[in-house]
Amino acid sequence: MINLRLYLVTDDTLARGRPLPDLVARAVAGGVTCVQLRAKRASSRAMLAQARELLARLRPLAVPLIVNDRLDIALAADADGVHVGQDDLPCREVRRLTRPGFCVGVSVSTVDEARAAEAEGADYLGVSPVFDTPTKADTPAATGLEGLRRIRAATRLPLVAIGGINPDNAAAVRAAGADGLAVVSAILAADDPAAAARRLAR
Amino acid sequence: MINLRLYLVTDDTLARGRPLPDLVARAVAGGVTCVQLRAKRASSRAMLAQARELLARLRPLAVPLIVNDRLDIALAADADGVHVGQDDLPCREVRRLTRPGFCVGVSVSTVDEARAAEAEGADYLGVSPVFDTPTKADTPAATGLEGLRRIRAATRLPLVAIGGINPDNAAAVRAAGADGLAVVSAILAADDPAAAARRLAR
Repeated sequence: MINLRLYLVTDDTLARGRPLPDLVARAVAGGVTCVQLRAKRASSRAMLAQARELLARLRPLAVPLIVNDRLDIALAADADGVHVGQDDLPCREVRRLTRPGFCVGVSVSTVDEARAAEAEGADYLGVSPVFDTPTKADTPAATGLEGLRRIRAATRLPLVAIGGINPDNAAAVRAAGADGLAVVSAILAADDPAAAARRLAR
Repeated sequence: MINLRLYLVTDDTLARGRPLPDLVARAVAGGVTCVQLRAKRASSRAMLAQARELLARLRPLAVPLIVNDRLDIALAADADGVHVGQDDLPCREVRRLTRPGFCVGVSVSTVDEARAAEAEGADYLGVSPVFDTPTKADTPAATGLEGLRRIRAATRLPLVAIGGINPDNAAAVRAAGADGLAVVSAILAADDPAAAARRLAR
């Protein structure tokens, strides 16, 4: 099973012109253990190229790359897994189309969604959003720490918390049951992504 | 090999509120031999549902369903193939990830693109756009009948012409080397899709 402890999700818009593979490499140097490529506005071919660029940097470091939504891109790039939301391919379809060991994460915001994803064979759950965040539009209501605790009690799967996670609330989120912390802007928008990752990893 | 003679490409916006599976079924009754599901704005899950709905109507009629761009949706729905453009997954990646017999079409607008797609194992080429059309933005320059003839001379693959095809120019497009005619609005935006397909099929 992959190490979900500090999970970086990429974003097309936050890098401020800095090359994404460099930012990701610096974040890994600071303690990121897992990277998810999210590129909602890229063409399929551009996203495949991004996935391959990231894999070339991450494979030598034994840091896994998970692809958001696009199972075809994940398979073509030979990434380590895919992360699907409630509007993406159902987990059971991803399982049916992939090899044993391929990692499948599912975004959930309720206990019912968590139980369904576990029943369909998810490897981990992304509890999303724990707090409100400007990074994603059209997200469900924030679960809060209380909602995270309820999901923790309902499933044995590892939980990655995402949405408004920062160094100030990281300890409370872990205490509420998160095995890992996922961040986007807290690392990618930072002037020093390595230092930002280090603060979160502590 | 599938029958490409009259090839309908769907569009999210042209149906004017009429259910897409009904429009497609009427088009097939009028002579459409192959359907491509294109749904650039739909979520993955919604597109999978659309693919399954169309397959439920098309399989009993032995009319194949090709999925635009999204190989993962095509695989999950067990569609007959995928159609990729120059910004989508490369044909060779699609081939590597799919079973023998899975149909792969590639959009080309130049002789070089046609030769490359043939070398990568495409089953057919979509020559696109032959004429200028309002349906797709950001398309390359129209090939015209002359460009279609040049591509015809450069490849042995079946060619489907798309872009501005209508009953008035259909005979000239076929005379220039197109094995099939692909249309979007000429059928989907018609008040009577079956009659529109019949006019094109003649």
